[in-house]
Amino acid sequence: MWRVVLAVGLGAALEALLGWLLRRRAAAPSEVIFFPSTVTCTEELLAGAPCACPLPHGESALARLLAHVLAARRSLDLCLFAFSSPQLGRAVALLHRRGVRVRLVVDADYMALRGSQIGPLRRAGIQVRHDQDSGYMHHKFAIVDKKVLITGSLNWTTQAIQANRENVLVLEDQALVNIFLAEFEKIWENYNPANYTFFCKHEKTGIENG
Amino acid sequence: MWRVVLAVGLGAALEALLGWLLRRRAAAPSEVIFFPSTVTCTEELLAGAPCACPLPHGESALARLLAHVLAARRSLDLCLFAFSSPQLGRAVALLHRRGVRVRLVVDADYMALRGSQIGPLRRAGIQVRHDQDSGYMHHKFAIVDKKVLITGSLNWTTQAIQANRENVLVLEDQALVNIFLAEFEKIWENYNPANYTFFCKHEKTGIENG
Repeated sequence: MWRVVLAVGLGAALEALLGWLLRRRAAAPSEVIFFPSTVTCTEELLAGAPCACPLPHGESALARLLAHVLAARRSLDLCLFAFSSPQLGRAVALLHRRGVRVRLVVDADYMALRGSQIGPLRRAGIQVRHDQDSGYMHHKFAIVDKKVLITGSLNWTTQAIQANRENVLVLEDQALVNIFLAEFEKIWENYNPANYTFFCKHEKTGIENG
Repeated sequence: MWRVVLAVGLGAALEALLGWLLRRRAAAPSEVIFFPSTVTCTEELLAGAPCACPLPHGESALARLLAHVLAARRSLDLCLFAFSSPQLGRAVALLHRRGVRVRLVVDADYMALRGSQIGPLRRAGIQVRHDQDSGYMHHKFAIVDKKVLITGSLNWTTQAIQANRENVLVLEDQALVNIFLAEFEKIWENYNPANYTFFCKHEKTGIENG
């Protein structure tokens, strides 16, 4: 008798575990978004109200990317080579106003170009850090609520969104997210303004000595 | 009695299925490679023999990327914005000589720049196709044996490898691989030289009419 109970119990336990594992796989969807995006109106996503402008109002690659970014409730960690898309800029500013903690790492050479969103976002109160290296800070990833990784070839520019062939992966694999989070934290600390050097070593020594 | 047999059998079957599922997860590893890469000698990977040059001979981000590319046995589908790294160029030429079917899609504006690997690889007999659009073919992905996806922010250039902050994801998720394969096939067909237009419409009409 105890054998029957044991075997049935074991079977049920294994079945439950198996179901959980399968659900866990199903709960970690991956999405790939290819660009260029068709031009659609994204006002409803950004302003929260229907819009009657003459642009098409359907789905688009940009609308899907915006929806993933706007899903942030607690934190948004951005590591972007170039950021000039007005729609994505509005989305990030909106999240900041909603109380989402936004941190933004960018490349120093690109952040001051015409049309860059970095100035306006800084003025809105968002923390921005940048490199001081000769190499580029060439990442293009975002981490939403420390749970979703958005990464790929796409710079957050209108040229890239509307004209280039690009890919964006949206991944909810926590192990992958953690690897990118660790890289983000490393860069964030590395680019801490306390570490910026605005003078060469010789000049600094001069000031300290003088 | 039959209940015991059924329950034990069910338990064993579930256990086997569970083990297979767990092994399947374990057999689909993801790897993230961050750049810049330390400069190491990659001769052993590319020439297959130990090297005594003065460079360090340890692991590096470039060596790991090379190892993933060199793992190709049947096919290598490349979709690259810029390709000038001599080591990656040698790896691709080596695979072609080994009989791996290499297909290479690149951006037209970057393929003829100084140091580009496209010319040498074409002369080696590798099929190359490129865009004719005003936008960039900005993807940076490779598909190894239609099973492994290598994608990220990294252009295949020495600047990117040695100086930039970059990421490369190595993913063995077949669903993701299939999505990128479909995109590759679409672009490959789209960039078929039979579709190239070397004259504007008006001129072509003139020729056809004349």
